[in-house]
Amino acid sequence: MAEKIPTTMTAIEITQPGGPLVLKAGKRGVPEPGPGELLIEVKAAGVNRPDVLQRQGHYPPPAGASDIPGLEISGDIVAVGANVTRFRIGERVTALVAGGGYAEFCSVHETNALPIPAGYGYIEAAAIPETYFTVWHNVFQRGALKEGETFLVHGGSSGIGTTAIQLAHAFGASVMTTVGSQEKREACLKLGASHAINYREEDFVKAVKDATEGKGANLILDMVGGDYIERNYEAAALDGRIVQIAFLHGAKATSDISKLMVKRLTHTGSTLRNRPVEFKAGIARALETKVWPLLVERRVAPVIDMVYPLHEAWRAHERMEDGHHIGKIVLDVG
Amino acid sequence: MAEKIPTTMTAIEITQPGGPLVLKAGKRGVPEPGPGELLIEVKAAGVNRPDVLQRQGHYPPPAGASDIPGLEISGDIVAVGANVTRFRIGERVTALVAGGGYAEFCSVHETNALPIPAGYGYIEAAAIPETYFTVWHNVFQRGALKEGETFLVHGGSSGIGTTAIQLAHAFGASVMTTVGSQEKREACLKLGASHAINYREEDFVKAVKDATEGKGANLILDMVGGDYIERNYEAAALDGRIVQIAFLHGAKATSDISKLMVKRLTHTGSTLRNRPVEFKAGIARALETKVWPLLVERRVAPVIDMVYPLHEAWRAHERMEDGHHIGKIVLDVG
Repeated sequence: MAEKIPTTMTAIEITQPGGPLVLKAGKRGVPEPGPGELLIEVKAAGVNRPDVLQRQGHYPPPAGASDIPGLEISGDIVAVGANVTRFRIGERVTALVAGGGYAEFCSVHETNALPIPAGYGYIEAAAIPETYFTVWHNVFQRGALKEGETFLVHGGSSGIGTTAIQLAHAFGASVMTTVGSQEKREACLKLGASHAINYREEDFVKAVKDATEGKGANLILDMVGGDYIERNYEAAALDGRIVQIAFLHGAKATSDISKLMVKRLTHTGSTLRNRPVEFKAGIARALETKVWPLLVERRVAPVIDMVYPLHEAWRAHERMEDGHHIGKIVLDVG
Repeated sequence: MAEKIPTTMTAIEITQPGGPLVLKAGKRGVPEPGPGELLIEVKAAGVNRPDVLQRQGHYPPPAGASDIPGLEISGDIVAVGANVTRFRIGERVTALVAGGGYAEFCSVHETNALPIPAGYGYIEAAAIPETYFTVWHNVFQRGALKEGETFLVHGGSSGIGTTAIQLAHAFGASVMTTVGSQEKREACLKLGASHAINYREEDFVKAVKDATEGKGANLILDMVGGDYIERNYEAAALDGRIVQIAFLHGAKATSDISKLMVKRLTHTGSTLRNRPVEFKAGIARALETKVWPLLVERRVAPVIDMVYPLHEAWRAHERMEDGHHIGKIVLDVG
């Protein structure tokens, strides 16, 4: 904490919209922490699907956010802005940020940071915020998942998927998921899924119905969209809820709305990045109370797929795009 | 009440799926009231869109319901089954039924009947249940409409529309609606709509945005479906709710789900007819407490379009299908 904070830093820039190789290390000014903000010396940064979309030019950062990619970090607090009350210089934190994570320094409002759970290193800690905030809000708040319910999450081996399986299982739901390979299937079963459906071999609608005596899933978390939308309506139980958080198969889809009506489904969705700091603060407080103890006990934990050095962010994006990863890809910032 | 109950009655039968003329008067046995049920000597029966769909062969009655059309009645209690506690022979009631309304007698569980509001005749009373139960559940329970919110209801001059406008207005919402003619526009404005948008002349999405400083509607009640689904997503406010109760333009539609996600919309829907008696009883109790006083004060009231004698049910269906009606079409059973 007596260290001198440099004025410039290395950050990964999106030099133009395009493939992974447009990600290049550049020099930026170190951010100044504003009122209520912490300046973090970043030790590790998580890689997420929205970073890939942003790199491709499909997902511009929200107003006021950094143009540097990266939505989650872990590191040490090296400076604080005015009126910071929750943390002190020198403390180790993990944080959800609206951008700017692929860099040596990053500022964040103190309410969007959390202490690194006991027993976790920087790499694991950086792999927590984006998926835990997203899953908590969409599965437990928006989706209102309850103990004893049946939960279907698509893409079970993704960062979101591995987090959703563990949390839903920890809170007493029966978890089903879809996967694209036998290896991913086994990983999801180990994480607590009771059924992992290989969508290349099985129709997930039929598999979900078969596993639930024809009833279907009470809650579905979907990031696939496209043709999955109508199939989710079919796989859902009476009064089921479907929460849409992305649409890898496309946003435009033809679906039969009579299924939504007759089964009294609720189809909703959300995005996290563009929500105000105060909203994310509310999720952070819920996570600290309800999920941090589970992380400490290792009843849930981020699944780390691969770690790359910051300047090889392009390799991390290649890894995410090839689709072979299981769990989180993390950048080691050093 | 000392009158003798006949063993047979006149009822309107759907002789085969088809146009209005397949509706023909026939003879049926008078129903026996089961435990908790009332036998009503029907004085008037409301006509609803599902009756038309049933006649066309598109909407089979739920298991256990009569194959005679008709979802709402008013009349006198002429007999009661075992364990009836709420009503006595001779009382005047209006009731929601799962079928069998187009007939001289109809049985109904006592919990799904309500006293005819003071000052109402049989014709008006028969025009209440279907739309009031539907609107209460979908707008206030499922849709959670709150005072001060902006509410858009499509088809403002329909039975559902005229009821939804009045109730939403009475409970302090700002009401917008879509209509197909100048005459219907004026009728809806008189009922309490602040904006009635002629969809033949104006794009309702633009009109709703213009009327709400670009914000959109907090709640949309839709019975149109088809191309309206995506347009509802556009017309809805952030965190808006859309409740689907029918799909006159078809159930299959292509829509852009990214709008649902980015605006955090909730798209849900329901059907009333196939719900159990206990569920409808809950709505009946809420209506009796919250809406019956408004009916008595005439702050809300059914809008009667036309009345036909029972044996001219086919003319009532023609009237509904030509789309010129404003409010409810009722059969006078005598």
